[in-house]
Amino acid sequence: MAAVTYKLIKQCPRTGARLGKLITPHGEIDTPVFMPVGTQASVKGISPEELEALGAKIILSNTYHLFLRPGHELVAEAGGLHKFMNWNGSILTDSGGFQVFSLSDLRKITEEGVAFRSHLDGAKLFLSPEKAMEIENALGADIMMAFDECTPYPSTYDYTKRSLERTTRWAERCLKAHKNTEKQSLFGIVQGGTFADLRKKSAREIVSLDFPGYAIGGLSVGEATQTMYDMLEETVPELPENKARYLMGVGRPDNLVEGVMRGIDMFDCVLPTRIGRNGTALTSRGRVIVRDAKYAHDFSPIDPECNCPACRNHSKAYIRHLLKAGEMYGLRLMTIHNLYYLVHLMGDIRKAIAEDRFPEFREEFYEKLAGNRC
Amino acid sequence: MAAVTYKLIKQCPRTGARLGKLITPHGEIDTPVFMPVGTQASVKGISPEELEALGAKIILSNTYHLFLRPGHELVAEAGGLHKFMNWNGSILTDSGGFQVFSLSDLRKITEEGVAFRSHLDGAKLFLSPEKAMEIENALGADIMMAFDECTPYPSTYDYTKRSLERTTRWAERCLKAHKNTEKQSLFGIVQGGTFADLRKKSAREIVSLDFPGYAIGGLSVGEATQTMYDMLEETVPELPENKARYLMGVGRPDNLVEGVMRGIDMFDCVLPTRIGRNGTALTSRGRVIVRDAKYAHDFSPIDPECNCPACRNHSKAYIRHLLKAGEMYGLRLMTIHNLYYLVHLMGDIRKAIAEDRFPEFREEFYEKLAGNRC
Repeated sequence: MAAVTYKLIKQCPRTGARLGKLITPHGEIDTPVFMPVGTQASVKGISPEELEALGAKIILSNTYHLFLRPGHELVAEAGGLHKFMNWNGSILTDSGGFQVFSLSDLRKITEEGVAFRSHLDGAKLFLSPEKAMEIENALGADIMMAFDECTPYPSTYDYTKRSLERTTRWAERCLKAHKNTEKQSLFGIVQGGTFADLRKKSAREIVSLDFPGYAIGGLSVGEATQTMYDMLEETVPELPENKARYLMGVGRPDNLVEGVMRGIDMFDCVLPTRIGRNGTALTSRGRVIVRDAKYAHDFSPIDPECNCPACRNHSKAYIRHLLKAGEMYGLRLMTIHNLYYLVHLMGDIRKAIAEDRFPEFREEFYEKLAGNRC
Repeated sequence: MAAVTYKLIKQCPRTGARLGKLITPHGEIDTPVFMPVGTQASVKGISPEELEALGAKIILSNTYHLFLRPGHELVAEAGGLHKFMNWNGSILTDSGGFQVFSLSDLRKITEEGVAFRSHLDGAKLFLSPEKAMEIENALGADIMMAFDECTPYPSTYDYTKRSLERTTRWAERCLKAHKNTEKQSLFGIVQGGTFADLRKKSAREIVSLDFPGYAIGGLSVGEATQTMYDMLEETVPELPENKARYLMGVGRPDNLVEGVMRGIDMFDCVLPTRIGRNGTALTSRGRVIVRDAKYAHDFSPIDPECNCPACRNHSKAYIRHLLKAGEMYGLRLMTIHNLYYLVHLMGDIRKAIAEDRFPEFREEFYEKLAGNRC
């Protein structure tokens, strides 16, 4: 039995949305779920207690960054990532592939793996399926991701095909190299760019390898939003019902709603934390640019309906002041608010599915936005 | 009756140390006390709940910074500084004098006040006793400080004398300009540089004006530590027993112990928060440079005897990683630890005075340090 299993609880009768449970060595997670990102073993500015208090059950951490600093051996010496950062919930680690491929000038891809230079000190490094598994095993996350190539957008049909085929071969190598199957589960990643038949081909190949969960990678990388939705519609039907489905790198509120509608169970994205630090809050009525001068004298909370610590305790005028003055506490409050919003949006989505009103929930979601950016 | 009063509870029979209570509109504060600094209406990275949880009862905020940004009118519109930042404990505001005088190239002193340029945008501004009181009244802190000249070190005898005499004249103008005596108390500031007779002269002049509390300013500005102690010994006997005594800008642990021994009740300093952010922790065994490579694999807390959130939840290796990786949470943990240490050091000092063993406490304090830097 895999370390991590998925249990389907309920299927929305009118859409692809589904309610489920992800069972991991560090607890059960109701799905669909949004995973906050703690790139360097820390969700920027936020304590593990705060993450727990805002309802997060699983976070993502980045293999590439931890490999470079402090190094996976050090994390292993600490007893793994959970102990190192004192987070008792579940953790998912990516494979480092996405970051390495983003270093476009600094890396070289071969069948063996990817040679690259550290963005920190220029050191020559190499990641391969085997090395990624070694690192992810050392980190000890509940869910590990396979080492894939996140095909860039745009790419030609031919390149995308060759790339996804290599991703399949790498997935096989990952399965062989993964050494801690009792405590960690390895998820496969479907690629295939923006080509429907290649998405299906990749999904079939990856599913044939029988992973305990599947991710859809290479989306939200520059393609039109509708193209992303189209690709989900091509891919999800190829994935088995009894395994979790994870749409990588997606976190815009409408993308979450649409992803859920198309059968996705898990999401992650730096968007809420990154735009929060830039002064933009996510709310049910759309984005609130807290840095805007119009909020200088606004002593009401970011979102009067929100129950997060930022909205319970502080006004837009105060948070704006903190942001303008470069005060850390302002970044912290914005981050908390945005994570709280997304984590609770997923809770509302789950409730709607449970009560057989997900399509109505989706309509209300868009009505509340009323033309605002989400 | 003044808004803020001091009640002497116990005098150490063998030293000048004393136990007291500062009674303010926002609660009672056991003294001797250390006040964390929240320069821009925020103690860097820390929430008001965390400040309360670590035992802080009173914080200091900076008039100069709030005058420039967001502006005292805005804070008044929010209902004052307590409401603006959501801090229900007591607040002390300085007068802006210290910051303005630090802008050595940008300011010009006359009898009327100080013309200076904003360090933010170069705007021409003017602070005077009347303007400082207007701003401090708008901020609404429990304790306001008079607008003084913090005489630079070193200064000649003649300059120091003229400067302290002006500070006395400014103190009189502050008393006249202070408009909210029911809810805010104005403390006078003794200057006099490093000249014993000038310290006495300043203390006598300021005390003759009958403030509800007295600060000793212009120390810890570059003079030798022993000189600071000598000046305290010259000054404190001139101050009335039934009023609080505040040593401005002092926060090194040994300076706190020595200040208490010489009869000081209140202290503030950016030292714990600033050196914390730079990676240095204060502990009962001396400073711990958490950034040091020797702690890379040290999975024990900063101070095993400390019960702060950083020491309860995280290791030196993890905090070091956060600091090296530029993670905000690392700065937050270091700040929390250092404030917790100083606030609890003062608690230990109070306990020792209450139990008639302050001199023994002081000896143990130095023994524990055993030659380490404090």
